[in-house]
Amino acid sequence: MNTVPQELRKDPIVGRWVIIAPDRMARPQNVLDCAELPEDAYDPFLEGNEDATTPEILAYRDSGSAANGPGWRVRVIPNKFPAVKVEGQLDKRGDGMYDKMNAVGAHEVVVECPHRESNMSRLSVDNIREVFWAYRDRLVDLKQDPRLVHALIFKNSGALAGASLDHAHSQLIVSPIVPIAIKEELDGAENFYRYRGRCIFADMIQQEIATESRVVLETEQFLVFCPFASRFPFETWIIPKQHSSHYENITRGSIEELGTVMKKTLQKLELALDDPPYNYVLHTAPFDTQPLPHYRWHIEIFPRLNRVAGFEWGSGFYINPVAPETAAKFLRETEID
Amino acid sequence: MNTVPQELRKDPIVGRWVIIAPDRMARPQNVLDCAELPEDAYDPFLEGNEDATTPEILAYRDSGSAANGPGWRVRVIPNKFPAVKVEGQLDKRGDGMYDKMNAVGAHEVVVECPHRESNMSRLSVDNIREVFWAYRDRLVDLKQDPRLVHALIFKNSGALAGASLDHAHSQLIVSPIVPIAIKEELDGAENFYRYRGRCIFADMIQQEIATESRVVLETEQFLVFCPFASRFPFETWIIPKQHSSHYENITRGSIEELGTVMKKTLQKLELALDDPPYNYVLHTAPFDTQPLPHYRWHIEIFPRLNRVAGFEWGSGFYINPVAPETAAKFLRETEID
Repeated sequence: MNTVPQELRKDPIVGRWVIIAPDRMARPQNVLDCAELPEDAYDPFLEGNEDATTPEILAYRDSGSAANGPGWRVRVIPNKFPAVKVEGQLDKRGDGMYDKMNAVGAHEVVVECPHRESNMSRLSVDNIREVFWAYRDRLVDLKQDPRLVHALIFKNSGALAGASLDHAHSQLIVSPIVPIAIKEELDGAENFYRYRGRCIFADMIQQEIATESRVVLETEQFLVFCPFASRFPFETWIIPKQHSSHYENITRGSIEELGTVMKKTLQKLELALDDPPYNYVLHTAPFDTQPLPHYRWHIEIFPRLNRVAGFEWGSGFYINPVAPETAAKFLRETEID
Repeated sequence: MNTVPQELRKDPIVGRWVIIAPDRMARPQNVLDCAELPEDAYDPFLEGNEDATTPEILAYRDSGSAANGPGWRVRVIPNKFPAVKVEGQLDKRGDGMYDKMNAVGAHEVVVECPHRESNMSRLSVDNIREVFWAYRDRLVDLKQDPRLVHALIFKNSGALAGASLDHAHSQLIVSPIVPIAIKEELDGAENFYRYRGRCIFADMIQQEIATESRVVLETEQFLVFCPFASRFPFETWIIPKQHSSHYENITRGSIEELGTVMKKTLQKLELALDDPPYNYVLHTAPFDTQPLPHYRWHIEIFPRLNRVAGFEWGSGFYINPVAPETAAKFLRETEID
């Protein structure tokens, strides 16, 4: 029945690219259901089960250990049911008024730890640092591919956030297009810069630090806050205080601090909201741009607390029953040891 | 704890308005869960239970029946937990770099039938026509209010689509802002018109009818199709073949046909997908515009078949495992009597 090839298609009205991915129908967990992920299921991401996964692209390993065997700390593998595929030339085509291209790109899974652990919040700070360094390493590598324009790094944690395996992992989709949410941010930030000559993210950080009410935590290099126009209860952003548009340019020193900040933030969310399902998305500038004075990479975290009614993603008009000031106060006052 | 007032806030980067609605925390069904809606629960929308609801704003009634008593066919009431409220002056304010306003507007519920029925697909065509006429009547009325700029009409059907009651109903949120999804459509359609001098929706309809592969059904006045860049499996649009930007200008004659088309479309979805939860959103031009040559009202229907992973609404980058051609063929071939 699936005679339609995997491809990228552009909505002609708003310019939104989507991935039409019939091959992903073969995935085990496809249907909307509410089951918890089974805790005693076979874990293909466990150290020792490397045979059960696709061969690794990158792994941080103990010296002397062999590829695709035990002895790793963080491991990156191709997604078994990829939405985009690395093989083939990029082929952009028109179809009457429509635009499409073949689904070229990389869809990778970052297995975050060798042992069974579902939540990144419970990994060691060193472990989290290596995950964020793996993101950077993959982007530096994939950026070499002239077909690829943008990297989306994201995590679905918990069944209700879209995870299909109960072992901490995140994903990269690196593709020839810029996702619409990133494009809108780039456009908005560029307009602001053209008008005021300042980075909108810098203005925002300045105002958030001065106002204090939406701040969750602040370190030397990072600010964690609940944004003014939060779409979801306890939506939380992590942003570097120093300007940087491209995540892949992050330094070892910043990763050191980011690991600590990430762990603290996730621990606060876990404690405050009783280990909620959540997603995060790392927003970063396209590969084919020079360092941008108007854009800053950042991480957006969304706990999945309320049912998002379909009309909200159908209209982009979100109703958020928890004010960000309320959420930030709660998170700020949640003590972690 | 909720000292933050209900208000509209604008994301400064992308220009997305959200409703911060702490009062809605009081709603019975707030937490993400997977329960089916209880079938034997008390039904406040049932004929005879009018005392259980807020007083009606509009009702199509048998002659001689009294307001807020039995004898109605379709009934419109204020939402008990409104995201926006009709009282008060519109008060737009800045807050440093941010923009906000008080949450002025109308949030209404259209109770679609007096008897217990969960799915609009099983209402009579006449009944569905009156629902769509009620939308029109409410828009004509609310458009008089100079504070209000846009009407969002939507339906959450089934618990997994965000419904909190198992009695067919839809909602209107009429507010002082244009939701971002509508704004993006307006902008995209206007750009197309400026460049080509044609309505993008007309071009799309023409190509869809010529291509046939994404058409679900076609009548004299309406086209039902699965859009080229569908975000979701079985995403289905209903669009008038004659140009019209503002839904509230619809005629009795078009409503006649729309009722039939809506019932057929929902029946096909119900049969093909085993009575799925679904949402629809009616997209229409803002109140404060004259008839627009570049925009056309339409209805977008989204069955809730797959888990939408958080990264998808965090990035706007959707992965759709069912090609629209596959979905349209299946719906086209689903026979209804």
